[in-house]
Amino acid sequence: MEAIEQIDIRDAARRIAGAVRRTPLLALEVGAVGVEHPLLAKLDLLQPTGSFKVRGALALLTGVAVPPAGVVAASGGNFGLAVAWAAERLGIPAEIVVPATTPPDKLAPFAAFAATLRVVDGYYADALAVADDLVASTGALHAHAYDQPEVVAGQGTAALEVLEDAPVETIVVACGGGGLLAGTIAAVADRARVVAVETAGTATLHAALDAGRPVDIEVGGLAASSLGAARIGTLAWAARDGIARSIVVSDDDVRAAQRFLWAGVRLVAEPGGATALAALTSGAYQPAPDERVAVLVCGANTDPGSVRELRRVHARPPPRGRSGRPPTGV
Amino acid sequence: MEAIEQIDIRDAARRIAGAVRRTPLLALEVGAVGVEHPLLAKLDLLQPTGSFKVRGALALLTGVAVPPAGVVAASGGNFGLAVAWAAERLGIPAEIVVPATTPPDKLAPFAAFAATLRVVDGYYADALAVADDLVASTGALHAHAYDQPEVVAGQGTAALEVLEDAPVETIVVACGGGGLLAGTIAAVADRARVVAVETAGTATLHAALDAGRPVDIEVGGLAASSLGAARIGTLAWAARDGIARSIVVSDDDVRAAQRFLWAGVRLVAEPGGATALAALTSGAYQPAPDERVAVLVCGANTDPGSVRELRRVHARPPPRGRSGRPPTGV
Repeated sequence: MEAIEQIDIRDAARRIAGAVRRTPLLALEVGAVGVEHPLLAKLDLLQPTGSFKVRGALALLTGVAVPPAGVVAASGGNFGLAVAWAAERLGIPAEIVVPATTPPDKLAPFAAFAATLRVVDGYYADALAVADDLVASTGALHAHAYDQPEVVAGQGTAALEVLEDAPVETIVVACGGGGLLAGTIAAVADRARVVAVETAGTATLHAALDAGRPVDIEVGGLAASSLGAARIGTLAWAARDGIARSIVVSDDDVRAAQRFLWAGVRLVAEPGGATALAALTSGAYQPAPDERVAVLVCGANTDPGSVRELRRVHARPPPRGRSGRPPTGV
Repeated sequence: MEAIEQIDIRDAARRIAGAVRRTPLLALEVGAVGVEHPLLAKLDLLQPTGSFKVRGALALLTGVAVPPAGVVAASGGNFGLAVAWAAERLGIPAEIVVPATTPPDKLAPFAAFAATLRVVDGYYADALAVADDLVASTGALHAHAYDQPEVVAGQGTAALEVLEDAPVETIVVACGGGGLLAGTIAAVADRARVVAVETAGTATLHAALDAGRPVDIEVGGLAASSLGAARIGTLAWAARDGIARSIVVSDDDVRAAQRFLWAGVRLVAEPGGATALAALTSGAYQPAPDERVAVLVCGANTDPGSVRELRRVHARPPPRGRSGRPPTGV
C-alpha cells in the first residue's frame, strides 16, 4: 500500500478542477435498474470525451514536465481520447496509438482533436509496444493509461467526489489495468470498502489474485476495448489489500446492465462503463440491508443504439364494459 | 397570472418527493455543446419513464380524489407513460390513449406497466377525443397532459429544484401544450426569466401570441410526439405575461442540439427534450455575458441510435521524422 499512500488525489483534484466536470451522483430508488436496493450512481460517463479517463489524463499533463516532443499514449480508445483532449487544452502535441480492434464509436471522436492518431494491429498491448518505440525515438512523454501515479491520482478524484457528496459504505468500480481501482483505493483510504469488477474476458486482477502475482491473460469479449489490459498494473497490484471484493461478471451480465441503464435511467453506458453495475444487477454483489453503495458508471463510448431492446408492443384490447365505442385504428 | 399564482408547486413537490428523482443540474463549460457560454443543464430526461412528465402525473394522482374507475389519459407517449407509472405506484387502474403516430420508443416501455394501452389514428388531439369519450362513459378521472392545475404544479417542481441548486437569471424550457412552461412560470415567479422554445411544427404559443388568443395549429415535424398539442393550454396562456421570450426553432436546429448533447455530454435526448437547448445551440437565444442560464433537457424517449453522427475516421499518416518504424496495420 505504500505506493498508493503516496498518491496525492487532492492535489490532482485541484489541478483538474474547472476543466473536468463535476459529475452528478444520482440517487436511484429500489428497482430503478433491476436491483432491489437503493444505489448512488456516479455518472462519470458524462465527462468530456465520454469517460472518466479525462481525470487521469489531465492530472498527468498538469502534474509532470512535458518535453517539447509532447505526449504519446497507447489506448483502447478512451484514454487516448482523454489524452488528446487534455493535450489540446494545454497546447501539447499528442500522438495516440490505438489497436485496430478499437470500435468505431471510440475512433470517430478523434476527428475533433489535433492529436495524431495511429491505428495498429491487435489489442491494447500491441498499441503499447508501438507507443514505447515512439517514446524511445522522439523523447515524448509516455502517458500510461493506468500505471503512472499522476494518472492514478486523477482517476481517484471520482471517488473523492462521491465521498464529498454522500456517505457511502461501499464503492463499486470496474477494473481493467486497474488505474481507476488504484485511484479509488487511494481516495477512500479507510472510509469505504472498494469492490473491483471485471469481465470474464478481461479478468487481470482475478488472474493475478489466483496466481499470487500479476500474470498475462488472453484478452477478449465485450469490454476488451476499455478493460482490455493484458495484465494488472503494478500500482493496482500494490494496492490489492484495499480491495474488499473481487468480482468477475459475464458479458451477458454486462449487456443486461447496459439495458437496465437505458430502460431505467436513459443512460447509454459502454460495456466497460456498465461493468461495475453488472456486479449488482447480476446479483454477484448483494449489499447488506443498510449498506450505502455507490457505483461508478464510467464510460459511454459505444453505439448508443446497442443499448436499446425494443419489445414489440401491440395495442391491448379495450377493457370489457368500460367503453361503448370501439377503438379506432390499431 | 391569477390562475398561475394559485398553483401550489411546493405542495406538489412534497407529494412527489422520494418517488420522482431529484435530477442533477449539470454545469457545462463553454463549448461543451457548441454554445460559447456556460450552461446549467437540468437532466430531467433521467427520470423514471424517460421524461419530466412523471412529476405532473404523480402530482395529479396524489392531489385529487381518483374515482374507482381509475384514470384515463391521452398522450403523445411521454405523459401516458408517466400516468401508467404513477397509477401503478398508487394501485390505480389506468387506460392510456395514444395516437398511431407515436414512435416505437414511446410505445415499447408501456409493456412494463399494467395500464391498458389504446392506440388510435391521428395525433394527440385525436387521442384526446377518445379519452374524453372514455371518461364520459366510465367516470374515470381525466388526466390532462398539460391543462390541469395539479399537473402544472408537478411540472413546475423541476424549475423549483433548479432554483434550489443554483442562482440563475434565466430558465429555458420547451413548450408544447404548455404544462411545463406554466409550471416553470409559477415556480420561478419573479426570481428568473422564462424562455419558451417551440419547434416550427408545434408552435402553439407562437400562433396564439400572433393571433392574440389560443388558436388551433396544424401539428407536424420532428417533435410532434412530445410537443404536438393542437393549441396552447389555457393555463399556459393565462401565464403568458411570465414569458420573457418566445422562440421558434427548426427541426434541423433540434437535430443539431440532439447531436451536440451526444457528442458533448453523451446524453440521448428526444427531439422535444432537446428543443430548449436548440434555442441556444442555434444562436436564436444569445445570453448576456454574465447571464446564468439553466436549460431543461426533459425527455429521452427516442431511438438512441438516432443521435449518433459517426464520421468516418482514417488513421492519419505518421508524423515525419518522429519514428523510424513504420506503423503496423492500418
